[in-house]
Amino acid sequence: MLVVKKFGGSSVADKERIFNVARRCAEEYQMGNDVIVVLSAMGDTTDELLEKAAEINPYPSKRELDMLLTTGEQVSVALMAMALQFLNVPAISLNAFQVKMHSTARNGNARFKRVDTDRITHELENRKIVIVTGFQGVNHYGDYTTLGRGGSDTTAVALAAAMHADKCEIYTDVDGVYTADPRVVPNARKIEEITYDEMLELATSGAKVLHNRSVEMAKKYGVELVVRSSLNTEEGTLVKEVAKVEKMLITGVAADKNTARISVMGVEDKPGTAFKIFNTLAKHNINVDIILQSVGRDGTKDITFTVSQDDLKEAMEVLEARKEALTIKEMNYNEKVAKVSIVGAGMLSNPGVAATMFESLSNSNININMISTSEIRITVLIDEKDADRALVAIHDGFGLED
Amino acid sequence: MLVVKKFGGSSVADKERIFNVARRCAEEYQMGNDVIVVLSAMGDTTDELLEKAAEINPYPSKRELDMLLTTGEQVSVALMAMALQFLNVPAISLNAFQVKMHSTARNGNARFKRVDTDRITHELENRKIVIVTGFQGVNHYGDYTTLGRGGSDTTAVALAAAMHADKCEIYTDVDGVYTADPRVVPNARKIEEITYDEMLELATSGAKVLHNRSVEMAKKYGVELVVRSSLNTEEGTLVKEVAKVEKMLITGVAADKNTARISVMGVEDKPGTAFKIFNTLAKHNINVDIILQSVGRDGTKDITFTVSQDDLKEAMEVLEARKEALTIKEMNYNEKVAKVSIVGAGMLSNPGVAATMFESLSNSNININMISTSEIRITVLIDEKDADRALVAIHDGFGLED
Repeated sequence: MLVVKKFGGSSVADKERIFNVARRCAEEYQMGNDVIVVLSAMGDTTDELLEKAAEINPYPSKRELDMLLTTGEQVSVALMAMALQFLNVPAISLNAFQVKMHSTARNGNARFKRVDTDRITHELENRKIVIVTGFQGVNHYGDYTTLGRGGSDTTAVALAAAMHADKCEIYTDVDGVYTADPRVVPNARKIEEITYDEMLELATSGAKVLHNRSVEMAKKYGVELVVRSSLNTEEGTLVKEVAKVEKMLITGVAADKNTARISVMGVEDKPGTAFKIFNTLAKHNINVDIILQSVGRDGTKDITFTVSQDDLKEAMEVLEARKEALTIKEMNYNEKVAKVSIVGAGMLSNPGVAATMFESLSNSNININMISTSEIRITVLIDEKDADRALVAIHDGFGLED
Repeated sequence: MLVVKKFGGSSVADKERIFNVARRCAEEYQMGNDVIVVLSAMGDTTDELLEKAAEINPYPSKRELDMLLTTGEQVSVALMAMALQFLNVPAISLNAFQVKMHSTARNGNARFKRVDTDRITHELENRKIVIVTGFQGVNHYGDYTTLGRGGSDTTAVALAAAMHADKCEIYTDVDGVYTADPRVVPNARKIEEITYDEMLELATSGAKVLHNRSVEMAKKYGVELVVRSSLNTEEGTLVKEVAKVEKMLITGVAADKNTARISVMGVEDKPGTAFKIFNTLAKHNINVDIILQSVGRDGTKDITFTVSQDDLKEAMEVLEARKEALTIKEMNYNEKVAKVSIVGAGMLSNPGVAATMFESLSNSNININMISTSEIRITVLIDEKDADRALVAIHDGFGLED
């Protein structure tokens, strides 16, 4: 059996944790399995490197930033190989050049195009544990790229897909995917199995347990993921195409506080106005989430939408700069908002889900500002201060603890 | 004009020094020249990485150690590129994979086999300063190698040779090659020009200003080297095939305190005994320097030789283990010794040089234990405590200050 195991930066932050991971990998190896390990940079290494760069140049080129950041994972994998060798387990570390992990050109936000398997296969055949740098690729110029935060999950899935692994385990500091954040909703329940689509909706709705691009790729290549804790041996959550039916309408509820609302008012009520506004934002790589448009009146209309808080400043500046061309009369924003979403394949065939959600919020006296839905997700925008209460109310309303 | 500039780890130890180097390179670039910069790891980075490795595994594999150490130079070059970009000078950093610097397979002590020029040429044609990681290569397995301490000098020479550079400048913390170490001999004089052979003999005799393998390579490919300071704009020392005749018998004097003497006594006085002893050491990669063999008596003889202090422990263990087979009756060693050498092409045609050297030592009451000579070098082994006095005495004896 071939197993891919991915460990995040906190799992390899110091000597003790490195050996903890090494021992887990050694156990798997000693059961006769082939093992590929994917690692992130140790602890806060990436942030420290970013600080070093900022000291030299507040606006470093992304190409050079990737050249700098990729050293972080290389240190992790080399030390892990040494730890395994200390435990008398044959191991070899490989970076993105050595594997080779081909990616698109875009520095800081690349995507994998394909993964060569020759070198890894060769090392596995020699019965070595192969330790691969997460988060990084090589583009067609022969330069390092990085995949953006959380990219090591995607590296693990890409390797599992290319190598036809039997298992892809994502180790994290929680022991699986929960029906809600257990720190906010104490009676949240660990989910045994969840579909790719549900996981994807949860990941994009604020559940930070998996990088959403890794889930997309896992779905595309049919890689079954296991999310489990690096600190214990609990079973974890299985992410797959068809999950065991747990007789639940919804699978989980998540909150995303990294949200801001922007309203542009008095724009001309004619075709193309909204397009121009959102096209302007898209050109600056600003993702717009929920959109609400008022009915036109006096030849003008108001448009309200949400962006991530990270993009808020740039979004306001970009629109301000083109205010006249976009026929915007007035603009305002609110950072004190949060998205709360329920996700579940079960809601496809059950029209009462939205009503149950709104009832739970209403009973808790929580006002809904905006609503957005997909086939298996309902998202509401509420005041940020109400977010935690909303999670508890909805979790109880659907009886998710059982 | 194409100029290769190499800066050591202390020259890029912090932000201020990085910008000092960046400005020097920018000046060269702004004169219209093409510039390749070779950098070592920042400050004590390499030692810090070695400590990290030792924490995990006291005997890490050299392959993984190289994987770890090569991150050091990659951080340097990425930050230097950012610094140059901050000064509005186009720059790009390249590691050994990107260049590509092909080396022999041996981790920790590799040699360059050949250097690809396509990528560098392409970047220079785009009028970028190209910043290359020193000290590292890639072997035919596609793994990182390192060249051993001081290897960045060799990287600079290898690039200068491959790219047919017009100049290869080695920047260091002294402003050239001196007739003796100025910290020991205050009236030591900076040498304007020196031949490859003289430089080589000086480098292997304890003058730490250039890595001896880099001088060998420079001689082989006819790369003229300039040794100069990164802290001022002094002219420095030119290393070339035919140096300007400075009417000096000898060019310089150097001491090497990293020396130990080993004596093996009572070995059988028959052909092959010495061969067996030195072959045993060679198999363990222990270099033997000066050798002295006593005249046989009672069918036995004594052999005395020097090794570097780093190899002393292993040399003693290796010989001890094979004591009987090598017919050794007794062994002892002395770490408190030093080699003092004079080097100069002029001594080829002047038989009085050795006499002058010995007279200087005798006048200072310094005892000579062993003597070794090459065509352009005379080395004596003396007590370590006398080394500094010997340098001054010989420097004065030959009137090198003039």
